[in-house]
Amino acid sequence: MISYFNGQYLPQEEIAISPDDRGFLMGDGIYEVIRSYHGYLFELDAHIERLRNGAQALQFNYSAFKEIKEIANQLITRNELSQQDATVYIQVTRGVAKRSHEFPPSGTALTIYATTQKFVPKSVQAEKGISATLYPDVRWARCNIKSINLIVNSMAHQHAIDSDAQEAIFIRNGYLTEGAHTNVLLVKNKTIITPPATNYILAGITRKVVLSICHIYNIPLEERSVAEKELFTADELMIVGTTVEIMPVVMLNKERINDGKPGPTTIKLQRLFKEVIKYKL
Amino acid sequence: MISYFNGQYLPQEEIAISPDDRGFLMGDGIYEVIRSYHGYLFELDAHIERLRNGAQALQFNYSAFKEIKEIANQLITRNELSQQDATVYIQVTRGVAKRSHEFPPSGTALTIYATTQKFVPKSVQAEKGISATLYPDVRWARCNIKSINLIVNSMAHQHAIDSDAQEAIFIRNGYLTEGAHTNVLLVKNKTIITPPATNYILAGITRKVVLSICHIYNIPLEERSVAEKELFTADELMIVGTTVEIMPVVMLNKERINDGKPGPTTIKLQRLFKEVIKYKL
Repeated sequence: MISYFNGQYLPQEEIAISPDDRGFLMGDGIYEVIRSYHGYLFELDAHIERLRNGAQALQFNYSAFKEIKEIANQLITRNELSQQDATVYIQVTRGVAKRSHEFPPSGTALTIYATTQKFVPKSVQAEKGISATLYPDVRWARCNIKSINLIVNSMAHQHAIDSDAQEAIFIRNGYLTEGAHTNVLLVKNKTIITPPATNYILAGITRKVVLSICHIYNIPLEERSVAEKELFTADELMIVGTTVEIMPVVMLNKERINDGKPGPTTIKLQRLFKEVIKYKL
Repeated sequence: MISYFNGQYLPQEEIAISPDDRGFLMGDGIYEVIRSYHGYLFELDAHIERLRNGAQALQFNYSAFKEIKEIANQLITRNELSQQDATVYIQVTRGVAKRSHEFPPSGTALTIYATTQKFVPKSVQAEKGISATLYPDVRWARCNIKSINLIVNSMAHQHAIDSDAQEAIFIRNGYLTEGAHTNVLLVKNKTIITPPATNYILAGITRKVVLSICHIYNIPLEERSVAEKELFTADELMIVGTTVEIMPVVMLNKERINDGKPGPTTIKLQRLFKEVIKYKL
């Protein structure tokens, strides 16, 4: 595997992160995971835009980001992944500096690391649906920044796995925020409902594509707060994200959602989403 | 500088962190900073105990932690720092694994990294006091875990520096929590007041020593919630921590606290704290 590190393309095992990297010492970084469909980097501009927004929020000097498009494409090519599904991972940290809460001296280069791997979609789960568990959303109040501070996301996801589920859904103060690595939508009376993109959720790129699909194809949509109990009485429940695309959730905390099968709106969205991808390729 | 990395003592520049380290990828780690007074590691057991508690909270397998005492002492010796003031930094992450929100396979070794540096106390600041600024506490709801997810602490501290101050003090929902890398105490009518050790603050080790000093020397103490506005009308304000020890805060958001000079209770605590250290050495 060839990865990218601070200007060089290197075998992954040759990459050495400094113990003084702010990513390692302070979780002081942001990241993106981009889906590649046979070499086509889906919504690449949107991912780069979000990375830029995160960098701005954290006061990173992000002028170097214009190269990221090139890096992502190079990784696909150099690893001969352009004929299959893959993901590209990009991480940017505030760079290497003597450990201090103070920002590094101006002029300190950001650390830019990127890698790729082939991706096998979970087709059976997409067809039959998955189980999810609720988890208390004890994360920070800036979840709109895609930071590498992922302790809670990881704890939540592991809790799901330990509960024979595949995703954790966060509840903050009795209300739905999002999944541990996805956004969450429900369907009630043929209307799609999802929480608005506040500072408590990440404005997912797949979420945005789905909202546009709803707009174009006249699927009723409400962006509003969703109380925890509404999840259990939803007609349909789904998670959306870069790797899961659109995935039905048929069990929540071991309770069936509706009849425990993927519903018609979810299936329709899956079909329309596939068409969007096909159109773009 | 000789540092410690996964069982070896190495020159700092030879330490290479894997890009797959959970610390680098997900901020999935905890740390401690321990003060060494001429080779005496102050409250070492308390630091190790806190590290163990953090490890437990994050579901780390922490059996290896018994070596940490030895590591800390070795670093002081090997770097010839036993005749001066120094700090020892210890960081433990969930180890190296293919990136996933799921925990690494059982048996994956934790990453243990430790380093040391000489420390010069800020004597002038301790005598004259420092300025602080308020900052919104947007951190997670598990600040009692000393995790390396330090983005907000760093942003807050940098904000203080940009405001000609030396520390940021967090306010959550109108109430004091703690400083960006210290605990905060105030004095009103000769009583020391500080927020209780909930999940919203780190139970500081210096804080605990100060509470014991209050107990032994009959200094009235209240552990209770402190509203933001109380900070401005305090008779005295101070921050306490491993590196700052006990530091008067004489300006807050550019407003003077009382007459803008360190007060008698703060000075008394500083004197008693020094005596405790002297007694232990």
